[in-house]
Amino acid sequence: MKRKIKITIEYDGTNYSGWQIQPDQISVQQKIEEALKALFNDDVKIHGAGRTDAGVHALGQVAHFELDADIPSERIKYAINTKLPKDIRIVKSEEADIDFHARYNAKGKVYRFQIHNADIPSAIFRNNRYHVRQILDVEKMIEAGAFFLGVHEFSAFCGSGTDVDNKVREIYRIDIVKRGNVIELEFQGSGFLYHMIRIMVGTLIDVGKGKIKPQAISEIILSGDRCNAGATAGGCGLCLVRVLY
Amino acid sequence: MKRKIKITIEYDGTNYSGWQIQPDQISVQQKIEEALKALFNDDVKIHGAGRTDAGVHALGQVAHFELDADIPSERIKYAINTKLPKDIRIVKSEEADIDFHARYNAKGKVYRFQIHNADIPSAIFRNNRYHVRQILDVEKMIEAGAFFLGVHEFSAFCGSGTDVDNKVREIYRIDIVKRGNVIELEFQGSGFLYHMIRIMVGTLIDVGKGKIKPQAISEIILSGDRCNAGATAGGCGLCLVRVLY
Repeated sequence: MKRKIKITIEYDGTNYSGWQIQPDQISVQQKIEEALKALFNDDVKIHGAGRTDAGVHALGQVAHFELDADIPSERIKYAINTKLPKDIRIVKSEEADIDFHARYNAKGKVYRFQIHNADIPSAIFRNNRYHVRQILDVEKMIEAGAFFLGVHEFSAFCGSGTDVDNKVREIYRIDIVKRGNVIELEFQGSGFLYHMIRIMVGTLIDVGKGKIKPQAISEIILSGDRCNAGATAGGCGLCLVRVLY
Repeated sequence: MKRKIKITIEYDGTNYSGWQIQPDQISVQQKIEEALKALFNDDVKIHGAGRTDAGVHALGQVAHFELDADIPSERIKYAINTKLPKDIRIVKSEEADIDFHARYNAKGKVYRFQIHNADIPSAIFRNNRYHVRQILDVEKMIEAGAFFLGVHEFSAFCGSGTDVDNKVREIYRIDIVKRGNVIELEFQGSGFLYHMIRIMVGTLIDVGKGKIKPQAISEIILSGDRCNAGATAGGCGLCLVRVLY
């Protein structure tokens, strides 16, 4: 009998081209599908809640797959982990409703972005924190972040190379805190467009540098023009923390 | 004119045999001396505040060296960093008194040890957190930690392979906190013997597992016998946070 298995995955994205399988590249999805193939001697396709870019990390990516085998769901994570490299770990495996779909059922996502705001980049966290040398005005960034909240058409914050038509998204929460020389930005929303968080962060960095005013965020959103927003901040700072169902 | 330069170093110890130069191994000290050689075309020997083992990290290792060159002290860090791999960064460079010695002048050190206390090891922090699967009783560990405070003869907590005679050390502070599934242990002391913190952590883990009682720490210290203490916890969890002068 076909079962639906939901898995929660933590990965260090440093050595991967991203979540999704792509020709001639090594992806997280591919590694997990290879592990399932080795375990169950069957081609099992997994469906992730969303893609992550090259170098982007996840503490709580979610995926599902169908399974015929008779293994208790909570043992599946241990079994898969034996076949995975150490920079990918299944942290949870559970039985899901047969209709469950990791992407279509997702109600929202939480992402975290870390900026290492110091004159020298971090040695230990070089792959987890995006380095910005100029000291940023965090208060101004917090003020600016509030303009993103709510329902907006986010064309100005969408990278090229996507064929999504509807660019309306809702952002529920943005928390920006500074701890030592690390600025942590947490975003919770209904969903995010291609590069959306990294462009929002790049724009907030411009605010923190004093290049643009916090109020400018509204105008940039309304303009719908990618050219008005800031640069795409480095993927290494980004982490998919949680998928909400 | 000879100058004395003090540098503060952050490094990810994952790919190194430790701080100190050893034959046929790659050490942090060696990488910095090679960088200085490349910069100043001279053999510059650096003196660290203390050794760290293979895989152990540092946020604030300190070292000194003598220099003849006429470069402003605050520029030295940028110059050295251009010649270093990204997992080693000089975060501060400053002029020191000509008598300054990174090791002899050190009044104490702060180390931090991170335990990933969950059934699955962390993918992202696999090189920064020591994995312990059994859920530990942190309250008991805090109780046990207090028995280490003060001046003791720490033979029972010293690894073999050291020729230090005086094994009396003073521990000023031990803070143990749990955040999510991470247990963070911070130790501040006059100095630490070879493997001392990792053996203390291994013993505190035994307390957290209920294998020994918190009060047993005193007896183990008094016994002076390494066999009575716990296993040496994995070096990847350890980080030299700060050297006190």
